[in-house]
Amino acid sequence: MLKMDAPALTAFLAREFPQVCDDFRVDRVDMQGVSVTLRVADRHLRPGGTVSGPSMFALADVAVYLAILSRVGPVALAVTTNCSIDFMRKPAAGADLRCDVRLLKLGRMLAVGDGLLWSEGVDQPVARASLTYSIPPV
Amino acid sequence: MLKMDAPALTAFLAREFPQVCDDFRVDRVDMQGVSVTLRVADRHLRPGGTVSGPSMFALADVAVYLAILSRVGPVALAVTTNCSIDFMRKPAAGADLRCDVRLLKLGRMLAVGDGLLWSEGVDQPVARASLTYSIPPV
Amino acid sequence: MLKMDAPALTAFLAREFPQVCDDFRVDRVDMQGVSVTLRVADRHLRPGGTVSGPSMFALADVAVYLAILSRVGPVALAVTTNCSIDFMRKPAAGADLRCDVRLLKLGRMLAVGDGLLWSEGVDQPVARASLTYSIPPV
Amino acid sequence: MLKMDAPALTAFLAREFPQVCDDFRVDRVDMQGVSVTLRVADRHLRPGGTVSGPSMFALADVAVYLAILSRVGPVALAVTTNCSIDFMRKPAAGADLRCDVRLLKLGRMLAVGDGLLWSEGVDQPVARASLTYSIPPV
Repeated sequence: MLKMDAPALTAFLAREFPQVCDDFRVDRVDMQGVSVTLRVADRHLRPGGTVSGPSMFALADVAVYLAILSRVGPVALAVTTNCSIDFMRKPAAGADLRCDVRLLKLGRMLAVGDGLLWSEGVDQPVARASLTYSIPPV
Repeated sequence: MLKMDAPALTAFLAREFPQVCDDFRVDRVDMQGVSVTLRVADRHLRPGGTVSGPSMFALADVAVYLAILSRVGPVALAVTTNCSIDFMRKPAAGADLRCDVRLLKLGRMLAVGDGLLWSEGVDQPVARASLTYSIPPV
Repeated sequence: MLKMDAPALTAFLAREFPQVCDDFRVDRVDMQGVSVTLRVADRHLRPGGTVSGPSMFALADVAVYLAILSRVGPVALAVTTNCSIDFMRKPAAGADLRCDVRLLKLGRMLAVGDGLLWSEGVDQPVARASLTYSIPPV
Repeated sequence: MLKMDAPALTAFLAREFPQVCDDFRVDRVDMQGVSVTLRVADRHLRPGGTVSGPSMFALADVAVYLAILSRVGPVALAVTTNCSIDFMRKPAAGADLRCDVRLLKLGRMLAVGDGLLWSEGVDQPVARASLTYSIPPV
């Protein structure tokens, strides 16, 4: 069952992460996972206009985090413990980036999700990421 | 376009990897990827009957390798350069294990695929793996 | 403080993992970590005589596991939750393989270690692996 | 042999990555690798004062990149293809972060390095990262 929908997750981001909440837009929330878009701005770019690696990491990290929160609610603060990311193609210059997340495991102590990152106008995924979160005891 | 179908991949395994070819069955080959089953035997088990981590790694490794070969043919020997694997649930004791692979990138030098591992009788994936292969110049 | 030394770890392997204990030799145990050698036999080899990827994975997995046990004792069964491994060079044909492990974190719930894999006669590491274990509550 | 020392790498960063060059300081360059410090500022922090995951990723990414450049020179643009990162401890609030990189492989096509991240005032590493770069043909 979903404990938080897109507006609830958006409000949570605004409250807890005011520094970065404008960067992200929650596009979809369901039992499979979430879709989150990085609104690409100058600060996310490398010379040449490509989205930087850290910005892609940040998108995947936030997106899997929100997928977990959508299921457990805003009660406990999950902490990223591992990320593996493959950069496969160059994102289009200046285009927004979307991460489609599958929540693969939601255990008592650990949660695992993975995501594909899509650049508007590129027809294959530009990156792939999997992340593990530790869920502290309530 | 597919250069090798299931029988061709099976014949390739038998010719090039006679030591392990009986462990694996190619279930599906298409443009999205492949499905490969590990026929679980005693040598794949840990005490308690669970499939061992190295056996799950071996399945994911072979499955992504075959997905690449299905597209490039048996001409060049791709070499595994990286694997990231998450073990998420205990496989059922003694049950076969299936890996569903998506081929995410097939470049001139690098190929990337990921897979979910399913244990017969467990309704969620037991593991997730992503692998990179280096493709030597022809 | 060390709770298990090399003979204690060797006896533990023989008792709990009789199928594979002859494959491994514990060379060193100290507060930094352990060194474990894979006694390479035919069953670990690929055509051409190279040690297979799954055998290298198995070595890294056992070695980090033993590093954890050396510190917590044989009380709880740690479970591998993640492995990331980079295959960097071809091992020498038929040569033994040694994994030097650093235990980087030993928490209440998670332990992290990494290791370099050395092939006798190759002067640079052939692989690098990092693993996470979940430590169940006692 | 080193092709670029600390001042050369610093000048390279300033020229090619003006947006982020002030974030990083090159502390050490030798044949084993490099040490690079992230000068932590408000934009790197999460609520509570902890350095954010993307900032730690950025530090590891830049540090391994500079280790590669120190050996191949500023001729070719290496591209990150994979990163695996383990977040192990909370960095100290507001403290600078240092990444000590080992360059493990410098091949014709691929380079691999790993690094430990240290937070001033924390006596064990806060994170561990390994990265692969693809080196385009000259």
